[in-house]
Amino acid sequence: MDKLKQTQIEPLIDLTPTITWTDGRVKMIDQARLPLEEVYIVTDDYRVVMDAIYRLSIRGAPAIGVAGAYASVLASYEITSKDREDFLAQFYSYADELSATRPTAVNLTWAVGKMKKLAASHPGNVVEIKQALLELAHEIRNDDINRCHALALHGADLISNNSEVMTICNTGGLATSGIGTALGVIQYAHASGKSLKVHVCETRPLLQGSRLNTWELKRTGTPFTLLTDSMAAQTMNNTSISAVFVGADRIASNGDTANKIGTYSLAVLANYHKVPFYVAAPLSTVDYAIKSGEEIPVESRSPREVTRIKNIQFTGEDIEVSTPAFDVTPANLVTGIITEQGIAHYPYSKSLKEQRDGKHN
Amino acid sequence: MDKLKQTQIEPLIDLTPTITWTDGRVKMIDQARLPLEEVYIVTDDYRVVMDAIYRLSIRGAPAIGVAGAYASVLASYEITSKDREDFLAQFYSYADELSATRPTAVNLTWAVGKMKKLAASHPGNVVEIKQALLELAHEIRNDDINRCHALALHGADLISNNSEVMTICNTGGLATSGIGTALGVIQYAHASGKSLKVHVCETRPLLQGSRLNTWELKRTGTPFTLLTDSMAAQTMNNTSISAVFVGADRIASNGDTANKIGTYSLAVLANYHKVPFYVAAPLSTVDYAIKSGEEIPVESRSPREVTRIKNIQFTGEDIEVSTPAFDVTPANLVTGIITEQGIAHYPYSKSLKEQRDGKHN
Repeated sequence: MDKLKQTQIEPLIDLTPTITWTDGRVKMIDQARLPLEEVYIVTDDYRVVMDAIYRLSIRGAPAIGVAGAYASVLASYEITSKDREDFLAQFYSYADELSATRPTAVNLTWAVGKMKKLAASHPGNVVEIKQALLELAHEIRNDDINRCHALALHGADLISNNSEVMTICNTGGLATSGIGTALGVIQYAHASGKSLKVHVCETRPLLQGSRLNTWELKRTGTPFTLLTDSMAAQTMNNTSISAVFVGADRIASNGDTANKIGTYSLAVLANYHKVPFYVAAPLSTVDYAIKSGEEIPVESRSPREVTRIKNIQFTGEDIEVSTPAFDVTPANLVTGIITEQGIAHYPYSKSLKEQRDGKHN
Repeated sequence: MDKLKQTQIEPLIDLTPTITWTDGRVKMIDQARLPLEEVYIVTDDYRVVMDAIYRLSIRGAPAIGVAGAYASVLASYEITSKDREDFLAQFYSYADELSATRPTAVNLTWAVGKMKKLAASHPGNVVEIKQALLELAHEIRNDDINRCHALALHGADLISNNSEVMTICNTGGLATSGIGTALGVIQYAHASGKSLKVHVCETRPLLQGSRLNTWELKRTGTPFTLLTDSMAAQTMNNTSISAVFVGADRIASNGDTANKIGTYSLAVLANYHKVPFYVAAPLSTVDYAIKSGEEIPVESRSPREVTRIKNIQFTGEDIEVSTPAFDVTPANLVTGIITEQGIAHYPYSKSLKEQRDGKHN
């Protein structure tokens, strides 16, 4: 993160109001209602945060890591026992419940796991543990902000002036507590003075592209055009797209990348059209414990997300529906992985380890 | 169409109530309201048919050819002049108005052009011309039914027992007055006793896949699963898809194929996953006057089709939106073109001419 020390990003882009801690409560913008309504969820109940994570009112791998951390704090406040062992048993149970909300995103398990570990190892009493948990949650959020900034600086170097880029799902400020990952890279390139245009895939089924990216890009005045996912191939064929930038929900140690369904499709299309394909994610997204994408569990969601939009039904519901929330893009289709430490290249099993161990360039 | 004479398809699959002529009126099932409502449009006003074509209440290249023919008949009935020259001048003006409703689909221009030609060359008086126009419209419809049948017989040979296929948009009975083109092939293979499963791409923006294919496939009891267009790549990767079948709105003489937006994407994905990619369309869809897909005009539609579903808005509308209704798949990505005359193979400039000239195998 050396690069971060040399430059200030915050004055270029104001942070989105994704998730904050205010007076003992978690405050989140309700992303399920954007862009037509700007409504906030304010709660001291960890179940409300969990439900918001499940309903995608807060989503994006880094942001749900932060949400999981703050939800753990709220959960700890519910435990009245002063007995350390009682407290820990109850806290672990809440924490495991939290982790299970969205199984594919490693950041949630990662953040909640950090909270559990701290609780287990903290030498103080229950009150002190609760205080330490809050401090750790703040640290996870600040760390996310800093990592996004560093990542954006590295990635923005890949975007030249007067270029057109493509992205899928929302990986901007709303997906993190910072300026974002893939969309953060693009937004930072624009904010630092480069002229560019973003081709935004709408991202069925839940339309994060059309709902959230349009809101974020309008907010920062970045030029864009919205397209259905089915138009991406034709756009790559007819337009000079200089690169595709996507986020990640989990990256295996070999670079195989689980991300929003449709990402693998874009990777194959980019490969055919000779367009560089970059994954942007903090190193916390890398699951070094797994060798390849085959070990990543892929979450299935409700068929209603495909048969309805905004709860408006447009087809029969007594039918078989495919509902994977993610797909896995094999590492050989990934041109580079942008992290807070720099840009990792194939073979990723080597380069991602070097980044973790600080042996980056 | 020799194959047709040897086999009866109709007892296998009942025709859909797509478009018929009843008591001097055109009757069409309103496809914009399927599958949740089955409502019919019955009219003697050619403008209502034109509006139905524009709003996609009737759609599918062959079906709008038939609709254009019957609408021409209705238009001719509105002309009160008994003077042949007056009649023709007025009829041409109505016909040109009709042709312009959807510029990409060659069948509309083709059918309306046939009606104009007949009117111009008919030796009789105005009353006789009107009668002849109705007979020609019936002939165009019957011809469509027969061509679909013949096409389905040829195409079904490409589907083996126990296989899974993929398709986009609706190219079934609803897209024609017969049993359909690409979906007709699939439905016929199933009706003739083959066990198969259809992976139905929902087909954004207008969801013809989720709305119309689900309705047709349920009607005939053909197993299927619905997926968002963004899931096609992952499905090809995880499932043994034996072939992709798509329709066509216009085919250039070299085999370049204009079809629903998303078709080119499937062609590239099929190529990468080594899945055969077939186009199914009657020869009337081939525009022998143009050399390649570069000469096909691509219709742009309203941004509201992308920012809304069923008129429910889900993103801001003061944004730039891509709205191509079609894309063009280059001939080199097409494994074969199934017509009523057989299966044409690359190079198509030769094989499609042979089919037209009856030199097919």
